[in-house]
Amino acid sequence: MIRSSAVLAGALALAGCTTAGRPVALPAPPPAAPQLAGMQYLYGSGEAAAVSRQAWAALVNYVAGTMGGKDRRSVVLAEGSTLEDPKFIPCAGRPPAAVFDVDETVLLNLGFEHDELTGAAHRDFDDRWARWEKTGAHDVQPTPGAKEALDSLRGMGITVIFNTNRNAFNAAPTEQALNDAGLGPAVHGQTLWLAGDDANGSLKDGRRRTIASRYCVIAMGGDQLGDFSDLFNDAASVPARRDATGLPGIASLWGHGWFVLPNPVYGTALQGGADDIFPKDKQWRDPGPAPKKEAN
Amino acid sequence: MIRSSAVLAGALALAGCTTAGRPVALPAPPPAAPQLAGMQYLYGSGEAAAVSRQAWAALVNYVAGTMGGKDRRSVVLAEGSTLEDPKFIPCAGRPPAAVFDVDETVLLNLGFEHDELTGAAHRDFDDRWARWEKTGAHDVQPTPGAKEALDSLRGMGITVIFNTNRNAFNAAPTEQALNDAGLGPAVHGQTLWLAGDDANGSLKDGRRRTIASRYCVIAMGGDQLGDFSDLFNDAASVPARRDATGLPGIASLWGHGWFVLPNPVYGTALQGGADDIFPKDKQWRDPGPAPKKEAN
Repeated sequence: MIRSSAVLAGALALAGCTTAGRPVALPAPPPAAPQLAGMQYLYGSGEAAAVSRQAWAALVNYVAGTMGGKDRRSVVLAEGSTLEDPKFIPCAGRPPAAVFDVDETVLLNLGFEHDELTGAAHRDFDDRWARWEKTGAHDVQPTPGAKEALDSLRGMGITVIFNTNRNAFNAAPTEQALNDAGLGPAVHGQTLWLAGDDANGSLKDGRRRTIASRYCVIAMGGDQLGDFSDLFNDAASVPARRDATGLPGIASLWGHGWFVLPNPVYGTALQGGADDIFPKDKQWRDPGPAPKKEAN
Repeated sequence: MIRSSAVLAGALALAGCTTAGRPVALPAPPPAAPQLAGMQYLYGSGEAAAVSRQAWAALVNYVAGTMGGKDRRSVVLAEGSTLEDPKFIPCAGRPPAAVFDVDETVLLNLGFEHDELTGAAHRDFDDRWARWEKTGAHDVQPTPGAKEALDSLRGMGITVIFNTNRNAFNAAPTEQALNDAGLGPAVHGQTLWLAGDDANGSLKDGRRRTIASRYCVIAMGGDQLGDFSDLFNDAASVPARRDATGLPGIASLWGHGWFVLPNPVYGTALQGGADDIFPKDKQWRDPGPAPKKEAN
């Protein structure tokens, strides 16, 4: 009951129905969830499944080439790097590893997102997500192509490591989610790194450098730019952040060491208004229909 | 004025404000555009730019490998194929080509989508799109990585061909849009194929087979499954359509001949309700907070 009146009040606010007192109790359909289109795309479409398979195929191709070559190149940025001048932590003969984010990178959080779409959009996100980490291990699936790709990497002698902002308090159910989905072994502190494992909160550079002190990280995968470097999130604006992915030292990493999975449902990609998204000099305005000619 | 009252009425209907007469005239902010998140992702984010660069990099890698090998494999399905039993049109010594969709594959329609977001959502789509084809040639950009990739393909001796559902009546401004963006040469009937070039409307298999009668098509790119085969759009349901992309003879084509660009803004990917998007056995329900313990 609390939930449904919150939904109605939210919808009324959206519509401008600012009644002075309580809203009238009408049998209102829930408003169209703003995330519906993103969820249709990511969780429901063949197009997104194909983008996912393509990303994993590109990763396996790239890694096979790297493992066959003489020089294994690390893809973890060294301390002091900038996006304009990226430098990489040397491999120094360490064994090869590949590092992946978890959510919407190797796992689709189907159960949580279904709850988000159909029920729970107005409850506290953090608490709900914590309950999901604890109880949702069986309501996930691998992203399309992920299991086959991770199996291939392990077959090439590469250690697969997960670096996620799931919470260290919930290490056991996160291990279970990964292992039961066929993506493991995920072992906390060895092949699974979580928020709380160091003092840097949700920033991942520290954990990446810890992993790179033990392994030659030849490939990384994620759905957020922060899965590759925290530096992206220092960008001064939405267009500057996008432009940073095309910088000379960065552009060639996509598909060659850094591999991105699609996620239009949540995260750092979803920000900005019309003037941030569309360059000023490309803002076409429909001229409308041509004036009708007079009959002669 | 007509538009803004339509917006208000729509928002009120959405909220369930089914007053018997006219809605009260409140100064309502427009409702959040349902496409905003998709546009933030596709046109504004570094994540989508990176997915795009990665797709183009994978294409160039794949094509370089194919051109260096002995056997060039055609990736156009032959007549009589099914997705369960795909067969490809033989190359028969024809010169190599790569075939691409245009919109949201090689071009981002920034101007049109800005108008969609900020102004025109309630005007007739088809008429507005036709005006866009005629007048929008300068308000586009290449998808990130597209120009470099098409230049690389041409450098390998491959003919680049566009197969789009833009209308043959507007061949000249579509040629101009592609050529001025640095993606050409686009010449109607040679390297540019449009809706109206045959009797099959927006279905592309006929045009693909015409192209494959002249060339060995070694790679295709698109943002919709119909850019690869019309068969995908015969699927009986949303999940069946997604599952079709993982069929044994199809799954391995993504990233190996068939290349997908992300598009969560429009198209055949955006369909279905919660039960189509999320498998029944993955529909987690948040248990909510644990009951508070009594103070002792």
